[in-house]
Amino acid sequence: MKELYVMRSALMVVYWDMETMMPPKALQLRSEQLAVLELTLHKMQVDQRFAALLDEVETSAGFASLSAGNKRAVVLARKDYDEASKLPDDLVTDLAKQQALTVGIWKKAKAAKDFDMFKPELAKMIQLKKRAADILMQVKGTKTPYDALIDTFEPGMTAQRIDQVFSGMRDGLMRIMRKAETSGKKIDDSILSRKVSFAAQRRISEAAMKFIGFDTTSANAAGRLDETEHPFTTGYYDDVRITTHYYEDRFVSSLFSVLHEGGHALYDQNLPREWMYQTMGAPCSYGIHESQSRFVENMVGRSPEFLAYFMPRLRRITGRSLRGVKLRDFVAAVNAIQPSKIRVEADEVTYGLHVIIRFEMERDIFAGKLSVDDLPQAWNEKYEKYLGLEIENDSEGVMQDTHWAGGSFGYFPSYALGNIYGGMFLRKMNADMPDWKQDIRRGDFSNVKQWLVSNVHSKGNLYDPGDLVRVVTGQDLTIVPFLTYLDEKCDRLISP
Amino acid sequence: MKELYVMRSALMVVYWDMETMMPPKALQLRSEQLAVLELTLHKMQVDQRFAALLDEVETSAGFASLSAGNKRAVVLARKDYDEASKLPDDLVTDLAKQQALTVGIWKKAKAAKDFDMFKPELAKMIQLKKRAADILMQVKGTKTPYDALIDTFEPGMTAQRIDQVFSGMRDGLMRIMRKAETSGKKIDDSILSRKVSFAAQRRISEAAMKFIGFDTTSANAAGRLDETEHPFTTGYYDDVRITTHYYEDRFVSSLFSVLHEGGHALYDQNLPREWMYQTMGAPCSYGIHESQSRFVENMVGRSPEFLAYFMPRLRRITGRSLRGVKLRDFVAAVNAIQPSKIRVEADEVTYGLHVIIRFEMERDIFAGKLSVDDLPQAWNEKYEKYLGLEIENDSEGVMQDTHWAGGSFGYFPSYALGNIYGGMFLRKMNADMPDWKQDIRRGDFSNVKQWLVSNVHSKGNLYDPGDLVRVVTGQDLTIVPFLTYLDEKCDRLISP
Repeated sequence: MKELYVMRSALMVVYWDMETMMPPKALQLRSEQLAVLELTLHKMQVDQRFAALLDEVETSAGFASLSAGNKRAVVLARKDYDEASKLPDDLVTDLAKQQALTVGIWKKAKAAKDFDMFKPELAKMIQLKKRAADILMQVKGTKTPYDALIDTFEPGMTAQRIDQVFSGMRDGLMRIMRKAETSGKKIDDSILSRKVSFAAQRRISEAAMKFIGFDTTSANAAGRLDETEHPFTTGYYDDVRITTHYYEDRFVSSLFSVLHEGGHALYDQNLPREWMYQTMGAPCSYGIHESQSRFVENMVGRSPEFLAYFMPRLRRITGRSLRGVKLRDFVAAVNAIQPSKIRVEADEVTYGLHVIIRFEMERDIFAGKLSVDDLPQAWNEKYEKYLGLEIENDSEGVMQDTHWAGGSFGYFPSYALGNIYGGMFLRKMNADMPDWKQDIRRGDFSNVKQWLVSNVHSKGNLYDPGDLVRVVTGQDLTIVPFLTYLDEKCDRLISP
Repeated sequence: MKELYVMRSALMVVYWDMETMMPPKALQLRSEQLAVLELTLHKMQVDQRFAALLDEVETSAGFASLSAGNKRAVVLARKDYDEASKLPDDLVTDLAKQQALTVGIWKKAKAAKDFDMFKPELAKMIQLKKRAADILMQVKGTKTPYDALIDTFEPGMTAQRIDQVFSGMRDGLMRIMRKAETSGKKIDDSILSRKVSFAAQRRISEAAMKFIGFDTTSANAAGRLDETEHPFTTGYYDDVRITTHYYEDRFVSSLFSVLHEGGHALYDQNLPREWMYQTMGAPCSYGIHESQSRFVENMVGRSPEFLAYFMPRLRRITGRSLRGVKLRDFVAAVNAIQPSKIRVEADEVTYGLHVIIRFEMERDIFAGKLSVDDLPQAWNEKYEKYLGLEIENDSEGVMQDTHWAGGSFGYFPSYALGNIYGGMFLRKMNADMPDWKQDIRRGDFSNVKQWLVSNVHSKGNLYDPGDLVRVVTGQDLTIVPFLTYLDEKCDRLISP
């Protein structure tokens, strides 16, 4: 297990390098490097000696008396092994190679606004993922191939359950979106497009990282910040790296992406040390991961309390750019509810609708109901239907995200589940620490961080996500707290 | 072979990341990552199926009629296999781990000028290398363990042969050093300590890379430039990365280190494509590699012709810093012969003396005649004897280089051999292209590059270094051309 996780953590560095540092001509070589590394990892995972040891511990007399943690560690190892051992070597290699190639083409196609350029490689990727999903469905015993992919990101979750949850959420989100629209309250978000230099934005990023305690500069730093087209977080315990992007005329984009990725990073840095190098020491699920990133980005970062603390710093860094902007107007602008085309730039209410669109399309792709050729049209129709928007080109449409190029089908639902989990955590945090927003107003993030570390991060992978939220909040999965949070926020925004 | 070389090239990325990008707290994790990767590589190398295939090809009826290249490829594969298969797994793992740790401690100890901090880890590294050298001596059939280490970097070379060659070189270098000293000609090198901002030095680096055609910026770039304490080059064909350092009061240091590492990089980028992923497609030796880097740095970069071309560019970039400096004085300053403490900053004449000191100490360490405790004293005595210098602390003394921390014992002789090979190549290039310096004066490096690619780079590993210089120049290893080159340079410098 240790060799496996050490190797995986090394692979993360190689993927990170591909996105941030690699010279462009190296793409072909890199795809071969990743294929060899993934195959090596796969061979380590399915080693017969590993299987023999697993058998031995599962059938041993002492198994019943193992601690809950040790027992769970064995169960997770078994699940990993069973799934990996059914995937043939050539599929593992092909997927790794195809991922590097498809992401490479996606970047070019997106820059050229040319879906046709992207299509052939995306089609190959989908074929490979369908092959993998068919195999995983057998091992995991899920109802559909797509459920098998979802289970990879959100153990125990199914498309059917997501559909139920999302159906309630869609109604709630559209209701709040309409409430904001029909309130007649106009929010001036033009202040957000005031120009802020890249140099100033980098200083804003530093201030944001300092606030959450993500250290990238000291002699004991365990993190980095770099720049990529699409922000992401990667890493393991003492080596966790985030990225952001800087737009001169949208400086809050980098501020919130740093808080978002920083939320991910704190999770990765505060996983349980005693389970490092085992699946028990990995994060619980992608949805729980998203709950942490979006909690820091939105529930903290867009709160009036954080912004009251941070705004004087923003003024100092940006100089003229924020002259004459009142705190109240700034808070309103960064919380404005407004349908938009790009998921990562969406407000908290409409964000879920972006995710639902992707979920529905993925479900249809893997049910054989939606072909690669038809993706742009399906995308554009759904944006019209749910968000009332007309998509003008595929770079702002179906090619905006990297996930499908990278083969991460089944990932998107986790984003919305993360919001829902986050709402449940928020209600519990409010009960546990009624004054936490006063800490934030003073610039003190430590109690919030401690709550997240102790309730979520340090638990590692002791529970499936559904069980974790139950243990932490005492409740089954419910969208109510998240919708209540949004309703209250909307009401504050539209109040005269 | 392909899997092996793809994996090796991935490992290069991980090592590069450790030196350039890795957060400091990740050191322990990184040492484990490298250990797992090195062990995996080792297991791939000693795979029984690989041995069986080797046996099969060596004993096949068609072996005799293979092309020279194919035959050499088999011989090299056999050598790799025999050596690797004798190294036990635990030694491979321990060496990789110890390398990461010792380099980490070396950085701290050097910053703190504290050899005692470095000593325990260095002692462990030497013990491990002695174990490896004893094993390799058996496989390679060398006379001493140290010869086995030398052979790793310079196939076919021995300490005895190096001693002969270095003995003649030492006399020659000390004679030229004295000629410069006693000439009475004073060279004003204070112009080199004029302040040049880091930003300007980065633009100088870009201009230097543009001159040699090392592309780091286009959409087809196969290279990068980054900043590290100790400049280095790493990479493979389409992904070759160099580093430099910037000192505000020594701007030529970065200019020449970029040319030096650029010379390495061109070699790595222009290895034979048809042998990519085989030992046949690897560079010939570390000495031949150094001949390429020092050729570009010194024989081109410090030539009056290059400096005549480059100086107007330097003036434009540095503004006031070079005001009033004549070309003739600048050429003299960057070629001044002057004993100094730091190898990488040494002039071309005294450089060889730095290397000879390291060679003599390594030889004594591996002969059991020199203990880790005695290294600083031995170092300081030799600097007094050969260079007439008093070393004031171990950071400018025995801890100045990273090589021993990294376990690269046997590497240093390659630096001086590189100069000697370079002198031989220079004589041949003068004969083949008498006008090459006129190209350089016009800023045209293409003919020189083409000569190096076609005579050296594109040969890959078809010959051992002794054979390669014979094939290219028609002569056995000789120090005469290099000493002649230095003598002529010295005479130009001291002429009234």
